[in-house]
Amino acid sequence: MNSHSHDMTTAKFNRTAVQVPDAQAKIAARVTVGSIEKVHLESAHGRTLAETIQAPHPYPFFRRSGMDGFAIISTDTIDASSDHQVWFRVIDEIPCGYTSDHTIVSGTTARIMTGAQVPEGADAVVMMEMTESKVENGEQWIALKRHILSGANITPIGLEVQEGQQLLEAGTIIRAGEQSVLATFGIAEVPVFQRPKVAIFATGTELLDVDEPLQPGRIRNSNSYMLRSLVVEAGGEPVMYGSIADDVNTARAKLEEAIQDNDIVVTTGGVSVGDYDIMGELVLEEHVEMLFNKVTMRPGSVTTAAIYKDKLLFALSGNPGACFVGFGLFVRPTIRSMQADAHPYMEEWTAILEEEYTKVNNFTRFVRGRTEIRNGMVYAIPAAARVDESSVMITIKDSDCLIVVPPEKKGIPAGEQVRILKLPSGHVR
Amino acid sequence: MNSHSHDMTTAKFNRTAVQVPDAQAKIAARVTVGSIEKVHLESAHGRTLAETIQAPHPYPFFRRSGMDGFAIISTDTIDASSDHQVWFRVIDEIPCGYTSDHTIVSGTTARIMTGAQVPEGADAVVMMEMTESKVENGEQWIALKRHILSGANITPIGLEVQEGQQLLEAGTIIRAGEQSVLATFGIAEVPVFQRPKVAIFATGTELLDVDEPLQPGRIRNSNSYMLRSLVVEAGGEPVMYGSIADDVNTARAKLEEAIQDNDIVVTTGGVSVGDYDIMGELVLEEHVEMLFNKVTMRPGSVTTAAIYKDKLLFALSGNPGACFVGFGLFVRPTIRSMQADAHPYMEEWTAILEEEYTKVNNFTRFVRGRTEIRNGMVYAIPAAARVDESSVMITIKDSDCLIVVPPEKKGIPAGEQVRILKLPSGHVR
Repeated sequence: MNSHSHDMTTAKFNRTAVQVPDAQAKIAARVTVGSIEKVHLESAHGRTLAETIQAPHPYPFFRRSGMDGFAIISTDTIDASSDHQVWFRVIDEIPCGYTSDHTIVSGTTARIMTGAQVPEGADAVVMMEMTESKVENGEQWIALKRHILSGANITPIGLEVQEGQQLLEAGTIIRAGEQSVLATFGIAEVPVFQRPKVAIFATGTELLDVDEPLQPGRIRNSNSYMLRSLVVEAGGEPVMYGSIADDVNTARAKLEEAIQDNDIVVTTGGVSVGDYDIMGELVLEEHVEMLFNKVTMRPGSVTTAAIYKDKLLFALSGNPGACFVGFGLFVRPTIRSMQADAHPYMEEWTAILEEEYTKVNNFTRFVRGRTEIRNGMVYAIPAAARVDESSVMITIKDSDCLIVVPPEKKGIPAGEQVRILKLPSGHVR
Repeated sequence: MNSHSHDMTTAKFNRTAVQVPDAQAKIAARVTVGSIEKVHLESAHGRTLAETIQAPHPYPFFRRSGMDGFAIISTDTIDASSDHQVWFRVIDEIPCGYTSDHTIVSGTTARIMTGAQVPEGADAVVMMEMTESKVENGEQWIALKRHILSGANITPIGLEVQEGQQLLEAGTIIRAGEQSVLATFGIAEVPVFQRPKVAIFATGTELLDVDEPLQPGRIRNSNSYMLRSLVVEAGGEPVMYGSIADDVNTARAKLEEAIQDNDIVVTTGGVSVGDYDIMGELVLEEHVEMLFNKVTMRPGSVTTAAIYKDKLLFALSGNPGACFVGFGLFVRPTIRSMQADAHPYMEEWTAILEEEYTKVNNFTRFVRGRTEIRNGMVYAIPAAARVDESSVMITIKDSDCLIVVPPEKKGIPAGEQVRILKLPSGHVR
């Protein structure tokens, strides 16, 4: 070997592993909710609501016609029958968006369109198809042969939403349905959480940048790009710090810079636990508060979390699979919790295991897989695992869940129920 | 009524309804794939790949050590046993990212880290924990008591991916897993489809903008904002044209402008079929090729699609619920197909209906609902429907599927299997 020399044995060989839920709880206890800003509704898609919104007015805001037809006073129809037509003089025509200057009195009616405001006096709308019409002396008349009940085809004020009713809860991600609600109630400036800024860097002498040609013994830095996507999908703002070689002083300087300018720092090691573990050493320095540096899970047992200068620092494994799992279990919940999301963790489903899974382990294993729905049942199919899954980068793209294999299991036969964690947005289709 | 007067009876009362799949086919026949551009990997998240990508090199690119340990020649261990230690002189130390200048010959070994390139001559890696070590005359030695098989703990070149193997198909949305693949193979400039530009405007005299105070008989334009979110999630670029009142000439001018500058035009009516239907009239003009102007579905039966100046024009219902369904069935597939997505339509599942659905209709009904997974079964719960669902804006946000109620059904009892269409990204959690 060339001009490279350091002791490859590091403190990581003396780590105490914590359970995944305990690791998550240690992080959760230290997460603080981020700052709030206001954005216009047009820019609010994908942002997280920072305040609970109550209805500033009822909806509908006025008595709304549910039909194209005629607004009448229902008591005028009490004697109407197939033998006895009741006639109404048409005194107005009310399209959507207009109001009538006229009050409906007994014997009169107004033509009204769906969605228009029912005129004063009227208490029912009768659909056009139920009427006959005639013109007499330049006046338009309609006839009815049925008794119409009060309130027919009128949506009363506040039927959908009462004034003051809770519309949207703080921590909700704003998507199409939320946009619709906010627009309906005139909330043009939306209070949202600032996206947590997440510094991403990779450590490892073996790492080449994505536009560098390959060199013997080296691989390109793919984890930084993968993490960038994951941060975006979690609602954070990724800040790319590139990769740094195995030098503690450089790493420390980069880390200082990243901690200063960001809310969260995520590092990903070289290719595995075998790397010279700079981050592992840094978090043992006395000014850093280590939360955990080993978790009872595969892949990603060497995942580390620490607090430095009041900010959360995650040192994820450099294995692509382990990095992916570590992000989903620890970093994404942090990004969501900083935005008051009531459900920061991956959604848990049960599913039928489609193919036998034979690998056993003394730690809980999070196996990437994909789900299929057939006949109302959820099936989970483990990703093809020709080689150890933690290093298989290629199957990440085909996965939409993590199958949880408990440590006591001696593999799981096909057909058995398994617990799965649904990856946040699955296939975006 | 005030200064407003036109014939409220329009051509829409003489429409021929087509089935949903036929309507979709009519559109699909007219969709053309969009233009391609190259973006850097950092900007590629959420974009759609425009070319199928083959592996430019095998992966791993070199014989990779799967363990922290020692690289040896396996035949040296043939006689090793618990009674017979075999000793190796350590001639190098190979961290990740480095290569060795030495060739391993019989009786020698190199210390090697996980992920590092296995040195010439060696054909196996033995894990560190299986070795004993000593230092003699300043030289380091290790001993083995076991026969090691050739190939042990070495990931051969190309095990994950062979050179030339297909990595990613054109039409794939680029997310974390795809980013990882692209970075690994050095594809820094990614060929993606240009996002289709989608003009959005709303028609209806009753519409107020989101920051206007309420007025009697009027409602705020919520559909434009809802559509904006849906276009973003579908991978299009929304362009907001606001709302226009019920004036055919203004509408025509706006439409001309929108058609000129965009790839798709989506309009949404006022609040219902009852509106004065400008778009319905425009698509009947002779320079416009109408594809359909009525669909056998609820809500949204008045949905219209047309070709104008070689571009697709969609006139969706102004009902929030109908607008939402119309977008999902017709507009989103268009945006996806313009980017060569092999699965442009909503994913179809079967589910157990959780609550009885009693409403009947002569058209197929797409009922908004949400899914729950319990014990490996998918349950679909119709959205609370106090009022007619097509006008219920408030439940859109709580929906992650459309429950398909066929026209011949006399409602569906709880517990029965139903077909559901999964809304693209469901709850983003």
